[in-house]
Amino acid sequence: MTTLPRTLGVCFYPEHWPEDRWPIDARQMREAGLTWVRIGEFAWSRMEPEPGRFDWDWLDRAIEVLAAEELKIILGTPTATPPRWMLDKHPDMLAVDEMGHPRGFGSRRHYCFSHDGYREESARIARILGERYGRDPRIAAWQIDNEYACHDTTVSYSDAAAKAFRDWLAQRYQSPEALNRAWGNVFWSMEYDEFDQIDPPNLTVTEANPAHRLAFARFSSDQVVRYNRVQAEALRPLTDAPLIHNYMGREVSFDHWAVGADLDIASWDSYPIGFLSDRLDASEAHKLRFLRQGDPDNQAFHHDLYRSVGNGRWWIMEQQPGPVNWAPHNPAPLPGMARLWAWEAFAHGAETVCYFRWRQAPFAQEQNHAGLLRPDAEPAPALAETRQVADELVEAPEAGVAQAQVALVFDYESCWAWQIQPQGAEFTGFDLALSAYRALRRCGFDIDVVPKDADLSGYALVLAPGLMTLPESLETVTGQLLMGPRTGTKTGELSVALPLGPSLPGLDVSVTMTESLPPAETIPLDGGGRFHRWFEHLDGTAEATRTTTEGQPALASSGNRHYLAGWPDDETFHAIVSEIAGAAGLDPLDLPDGLRVRRTDRHLFVFNYAPEALSWNGTEIPPAGVHREDL
Amino acid sequence: MTTLPRTLGVCFYPEHWPEDRWPIDARQMREAGLTWVRIGEFAWSRMEPEPGRFDWDWLDRAIEVLAAEELKIILGTPTATPPRWMLDKHPDMLAVDEMGHPRGFGSRRHYCFSHDGYREESARIARILGERYGRDPRIAAWQIDNEYACHDTTVSYSDAAAKAFRDWLAQRYQSPEALNRAWGNVFWSMEYDEFDQIDPPNLTVTEANPAHRLAFARFSSDQVVRYNRVQAEALRPLTDAPLIHNYMGREVSFDHWAVGADLDIASWDSYPIGFLSDRLDASEAHKLRFLRQGDPDNQAFHHDLYRSVGNGRWWIMEQQPGPVNWAPHNPAPLPGMARLWAWEAFAHGAETVCYFRWRQAPFAQEQNHAGLLRPDAEPAPALAETRQVADELVEAPEAGVAQAQVALVFDYESCWAWQIQPQGAEFTGFDLALSAYRALRRCGFDIDVVPKDADLSGYALVLAPGLMTLPESLETVTGQLLMGPRTGTKTGELSVALPLGPSLPGLDVSVTMTESLPPAETIPLDGGGRFHRWFEHLDGTAEATRTTTEGQPALASSGNRHYLAGWPDDETFHAIVSEIAGAAGLDPLDLPDGLRVRRTDRHLFVFNYAPEALSWNGTEIPPAGVHREDL
Amino acid sequence: MTTLPRTLGVCFYPEHWPEDRWPIDARQMREAGLTWVRIGEFAWSRMEPEPGRFDWDWLDRAIEVLAAEELKIILGTPTATPPRWMLDKHPDMLAVDEMGHPRGFGSRRHYCFSHDGYREESARIARILGERYGRDPRIAAWQIDNEYACHDTTVSYSDAAAKAFRDWLAQRYQSPEALNRAWGNVFWSMEYDEFDQIDPPNLTVTEANPAHRLAFARFSSDQVVRYNRVQAEALRPLTDAPLIHNYMGREVSFDHWAVGADLDIASWDSYPIGFLSDRLDASEAHKLRFLRQGDPDNQAFHHDLYRSVGNGRWWIMEQQPGPVNWAPHNPAPLPGMARLWAWEAFAHGAETVCYFRWRQAPFAQEQNHAGLLRPDAEPAPALAETRQVADELVEAPEAGVAQAQVALVFDYESCWAWQIQPQGAEFTGFDLALSAYRALRRCGFDIDVVPKDADLSGYALVLAPGLMTLPESLETVTGQLLMGPRTGTKTGELSVALPLGPSLPGLDVSVTMTESLPPAETIPLDGGGRFHRWFEHLDGTAEATRTTTEGQPALASSGNRHYLAGWPDDETFHAIVSEIAGAAGLDPLDLPDGLRVRRTDRHLFVFNYAPEALSWNGTEIPPAGVHREDL
Ligand SMILES: [Zn+2]
Ligand SMILES: [Zn+2]
Ligand SMILES: [Zn+2]
Repeated sequence: MTTLPRTLGVCFYPEHWPEDRWPIDARQMREAGLTWVRIGEFAWSRMEPEPGRFDWDWLDRAIEVLAAEELKIILGTPTATPPRWMLDKHPDMLAVDEMGHPRGFGSRRHYCFSHDGYREESARIARILGERYGRDPRIAAWQIDNEYACHDTTVSYSDAAAKAFRDWLAQRYQSPEALNRAWGNVFWSMEYDEFDQIDPPNLTVTEANPAHRLAFARFSSDQVVRYNRVQAEALRPLTDAPLIHNYMGREVSFDHWAVGADLDIASWDSYPIGFLSDRLDASEAHKLRFLRQGDPDNQAFHHDLYRSVGNGRWWIMEQQPGPVNWAPHNPAPLPGMARLWAWEAFAHGAETVCYFRWRQAPFAQEQNHAGLLRPDAEPAPALAETRQVADELVEAPEAGVAQAQVALVFDYESCWAWQIQPQGAEFTGFDLALSAYRALRRCGFDIDVVPKDADLSGYALVLAPGLMTLPESLETVTGQLLMGPRTGTKTGELSVALPLGPSLPGLDVSVTMTESLPPAETIPLDGGGRFHRWFEHLDGTAEATRTTTEGQPALASSGNRHYLAGWPDDETFHAIVSEIAGAAGLDPLDLPDGLRVRRTDRHLFVFNYAPEALSWNGTEIPPAGVHREDL
Repeated sequence: MTTLPRTLGVCFYPEHWPEDRWPIDARQMREAGLTWVRIGEFAWSRMEPEPGRFDWDWLDRAIEVLAAEELKIILGTPTATPPRWMLDKHPDMLAVDEMGHPRGFGSRRHYCFSHDGYREESARIARILGERYGRDPRIAAWQIDNEYACHDTTVSYSDAAAKAFRDWLAQRYQSPEALNRAWGNVFWSMEYDEFDQIDPPNLTVTEANPAHRLAFARFSSDQVVRYNRVQAEALRPLTDAPLIHNYMGREVSFDHWAVGADLDIASWDSYPIGFLSDRLDASEAHKLRFLRQGDPDNQAFHHDLYRSVGNGRWWIMEQQPGPVNWAPHNPAPLPGMARLWAWEAFAHGAETVCYFRWRQAPFAQEQNHAGLLRPDAEPAPALAETRQVADELVEAPEAGVAQAQVALVFDYESCWAWQIQPQGAEFTGFDLALSAYRALRRCGFDIDVVPKDADLSGYALVLAPGLMTLPESLETVTGQLLMGPRTGTKTGELSVALPLGPSLPGLDVSVTMTESLPPAETIPLDGGGRFHRWFEHLDGTAEATRTTTEGQPALASSGNRHYLAGWPDDETFHAIVSEIAGAAGLDPLDLPDGLRVRRTDRHLFVFNYAPEALSWNGTEIPPAGVHREDL
Repeated sequence: MTTLPRTLGVCFYPEHWPEDRWPIDARQMREAGLTWVRIGEFAWSRMEPEPGRFDWDWLDRAIEVLAAEELKIILGTPTATPPRWMLDKHPDMLAVDEMGHPRGFGSRRHYCFSHDGYREESARIARILGERYGRDPRIAAWQIDNEYACHDTTVSYSDAAAKAFRDWLAQRYQSPEALNRAWGNVFWSMEYDEFDQIDPPNLTVTEANPAHRLAFARFSSDQVVRYNRVQAEALRPLTDAPLIHNYMGREVSFDHWAVGADLDIASWDSYPIGFLSDRLDASEAHKLRFLRQGDPDNQAFHHDLYRSVGNGRWWIMEQQPGPVNWAPHNPAPLPGMARLWAWEAFAHGAETVCYFRWRQAPFAQEQNHAGLLRPDAEPAPALAETRQVADELVEAPEAGVAQAQVALVFDYESCWAWQIQPQGAEFTGFDLALSAYRALRRCGFDIDVVPKDADLSGYALVLAPGLMTLPESLETVTGQLLMGPRTGTKTGELSVALPLGPSLPGLDVSVTMTESLPPAETIPLDGGGRFHRWFEHLDGTAEATRTTTEGQPALASSGNRHYLAGWPDDETFHAIVSEIAGAAGLDPLDLPDGLRVRRTDRHLFVFNYAPEALSWNGTEIPPAGVHREDL
């Protein structure tokens, strides 16, 4: 077990402010208890105002001023914001949307990951930055680009993408005949004679072949990985500081583990209230209850995910401090939440939590996005909470992560598969995973969110819902294993697995038919509970340990292996997980709605996300309350 | 009265499966009681892998294997799925969507009906197939193309369509001046000087002239007719087997009677559960009640429609056997429904019911679409129901259609007219027709769905709701005639009829004002019931046999002729129809919700679509139950 | 105080009808009490059938026939409907939509305001009309174009617009550096080196810079002003008759005051029932209650607005007489409403109310739009109501406007600002203004709707909600002033005002944080009432005269100046306004839902918009009732 010091930081844009203000800002950052400051990631037009002409003076001075207050610097490569002149050099660098429209200049992320010229420009600026600052001890970490995939930018239908896709297909399938076979193109005479005949799967009359779409999703993900890698490779020989990317929450359009493999630390951008309003799959009542706190499980899920993506090392690179500008509705956090969110991250093993941003910019796209300072440089509410966290860190200064006994297997390819083939309008891979995670969190467990090829042998309980294919790792589970629905029912080419899956040795069960249900229809289970959205008909000799009220298997079990034949609602999912956890020798709780716990190597933390006080073993925890006890 | 043997069949894709499996499949088909098998309609890339190079070996062997089990073959022309090489020959053959985007390769139906080159290619492949198999006695029927209009493919805004539209306009109107007058183009200075100035009616600033849009709808329908005709004309001299097209349910974008005039048998593709989820205009409660059974009237409506389109001869070419892949939600049918649906079709005079498909394909777009076999070749639930129907056919082997006493006039042009000019957001011609049909079905009547120019003189009761223009056939009705709303209120160029319609001799009534209503507003009728969605103010000397509670005419009558001034809700529509049916000497029932009856020449069938048992004259009919009694 | 005779008119299209009908129409118009007739505005293809070839005969004859019945003529320039040949001359004259699609011929308003060639053509036809009819005494008024902005036509992304935008930017900012600074383009490296690099703000990856978008909105508005001005300048020297434009209701995409500055009279097109169905921000219950009457405040708001736009002179150019064709649902007005709407307009100072249209056209786009005559030339219901108004005018023949004691400041730029930056999904500037207006109307006040630079010194009460910037005029208010929410919180470049706004001398308050709320969340106020949608956190020494139940300021006051920290619901807005009005020495009423009053110089009018009778000081006023009493 490793322990690392817990630290706080902030995102800062010296280029947005008058220079004479910088020293004051730097001093106030230090006084607020911050030790990290991220800079530079959107400043390409200031670093290189014309092609090949660089202006480092301002950046040098900014680094000096910040370092003078003992702030460690995270320097970003500015590739998410190519300057306007870049388009004159590479007019075809833009991504193209599904209907064929270019996605132009005027905001950010206006590039296609497949464009060779822009990828080389990105490597170039990374290398130039590395050469200049790579050995500068004040530069203590690097961020590459910013929020890959944000604004739906992973997938592009440009000519550059089409060309690269054909090359990628040729590499993967070697011959058009092999591709035709793998995709089943005979189905509607969709057979190709040459790779050059194959287009991206957009603008088809009705849906394209799911295998075609999955290939394009994989290709698109690989393009992100390749794009990130050229920057990592450019920087790697020039610096010893860790390389980081800041993933955007709930973005599943590329494989974060694959990108993470080229980096040293994973970080993510956590906007609990924005995400609740913008992208949470939950009832209106739930959203209203947690309107000013964020969902009690969504952040934790990401924390556990990025701990894995970072191979144990992870940060929050951007932490919401107040109302944001981009969700449909943007209320203010409940007082105390900026503190709670930080402590929840630390409890999950975060080394660093950086707030976004230092001072609210009065201009441009994010002028209504709160910072630690108001636009007029006065303290915003979160500043005091930041200072409070900094003070509290003195008593719990280190991030020690206890080995979790429970794992949830999460898989990006499966998210793409079910996006391509939802079969029921409300089915998404992410939401299914989050609802499994929610059931585990309600039990009070510490959870690892792990990829399909993780070592699962040490866990007392493993959940593997909705995995397109069945990973071999599941065979090594010695604890209790709960799979399904949909797990192992498809091949790697998104066709139906034959024999019908899941084909897990030791559990004789197969899915013979699937049903998707409208919101008003549910499948009641014998003894209580219900499936919604999804129900599978099972065959095989495994015991039906739960059944529907009609007597169909709802849970098929054989020893420690279980397959779940539907999507349980929250209550039911918790009940099923609790029972299996009991069989695993775990001691599941039934935490009240909004109360959540997480252990480190030495502490137990209790967080209250509810708008009312809740009780933990007799201790009353106020709304936004953080309770810590020794283990 | 003709009677024909009732038979069962299935759709099969030998090109999807290993050859050594074919004999087993063929044997199992025969054992299931099937006597027809449809093949070939998506296999162009296998018939003609390169332009001009044909491969018939596999098809010959498939025919041989199937015929060896005494299966009669329906051979499809593969024109719904042009191979990839076709696009190299005809790069401009693609349809173009309303916003101007091409609708490309990668699924199916990727062609514009107006493209001369592709139409010739279609005639060519039809002729080559006819030359090879036209006199082969094993080929007992032909299917031309597949599901015209499916995926919204009737209308195209391509250059080929624009050019053909101008020619069509020149033929129809002879001079731009005549067109300007007919359309009222003076209205907004929309007058044309030459036909070449006229574009399809898309991408206009606000709505285009309704007459312009109706002309384009008519043109687009005519293009389908012409396209189908060249294939029919290619095959006709080469074969004596009947020519068939399989119409898609609830597709009204072209005139099915006009296409049917060139064919021998009409068939349609019936997906009761898919259609309920995807395209039924009904309350959520109704959809939930019939979630696993399909709407009780929607299939019957189509049966009665295609019996007319086929001039008495009609089939189900594709019958849903289990969950499909394409609706928003895809539950499984209630056990017994695959049998019930077949019997309902037979009761309406179907000669053949073919299930779609034999075996669930594990790959490509429809991999989640159930078949009679599962993907692993084991029996799916519907297989046993198929066998049961086959057994039951022994006792009721023939399709004899009794002459219906009730007719519903249905009109494709009117559907286009009201789509162009709904005037109220929920108004569609199809839904109005279906709600009239529902009222009649609830009365327990046998119904003919007939075109505007049908001979209506022999019917005791004729319903003619929502006909754009007033057909002369209505004047010949000697039974009771119920028209309206909207019937006869427009000219053939979709302008307001003058004098104000309907101008039916013998019924002095005219529509002086129309009102469309939001869902929450209804017009209550005196004595109970209500109009929703639509209400017309009537003038004239006809007697107001029903009035609104405000005293406005709701039903205007003169002898046997009645005009309905609004869209009654289901309850009210049934009450009104019952009353008029009584005057027609008919004996209307009030069947419970889900119970439906249909007579042949010798039997009365009762079907229970409800999820609970219902009683018919003291006989309890279980859910999905089919009851047959001698007449 | 000026008084002008109240008159009635109608819109007529002689080119739509046979000439032998014209004299009958003209006579009937006179008999109906109409004295004005608008003609010509869509007849370009008849005035100039080929480029340069004119046909005035029909128009001369029409004028003669109409004048023979003593009808005064409003002649329209036909520029909203360029003929088809215009596109051959100017193929690039079309507007382009946000996704880059051209907006083509086939309806109307198919031109881009920035196209130099079309603007010149428009000036040309205006000049030619002016030369021919400018001194003709029968032409008593001119209408320029028709309903600018209708069908979303203000903004165009054409090449012509892009080019003109760059010139406009160069004029406004003088240097790219100044523009970069003003917009804060450093934010995401969005800096420009040359004006020619700047595109319209469409097709960006995520939202463009709000300053960029606001500049484009201003530019687009200026293009309308410039376009209108060239026609006004063409006509001005040729005629003494007043120049008018007919603004479309609830169109805020250009600055109506700026257009109005070049004209003599403002007019607007009032469709109370269409607007309720199509574009009213209100609850379903409210919309149902006023389904056949229209919103009780929406028309009045526009009346008061256009009285200001016309600098005291204003008309209704198009008054809805019956069901229209273009809203989602189109019910008929309650009997009496065509009279009530006219009287409400007169009570607000209208000189003329013209009904649209004389006779319902049986053809083309508006064939389902009611007129005063039916398509068959029989009287439609509104004709009698028109005659009734004409009779009643004898007793109240003049439009005298009393000076209002209450002003509502309305600002088009603010509408654009909040459309660009709603921050909460339901926030629009117009809806906020209308809800403030509603609160005032419920008090029974007469209201002036005025621009930001109006003289506010004479009003007892001024409301200034949602003004992007703080106008100097507010400093001159000596009565009670209620600002907020959002008022004065932005700079003229749509960045956050620093110091934080509003910075009104004499009221020390600043907005430190804003929150937007989903529909289900509200902020309760101490003592009752609530904010919805929007809530601001205030700082400063001003007294919190109302607070939330949590103790935060809801209303900050200092003497006569008040700042409202949220968007009150209707009930609460009325309560707050009543209290402040009381302090202003006014005597606010609490009118029942649907009852509205308005005073002229000598009368008080009471209007009942409710579907039931309501009482006014003991007088029962029936639905659609108009009550007049002397002052
Ligand atoms: Zn497009
Ligand atoms: Zn289809
Ligand atoms: Zn309009």
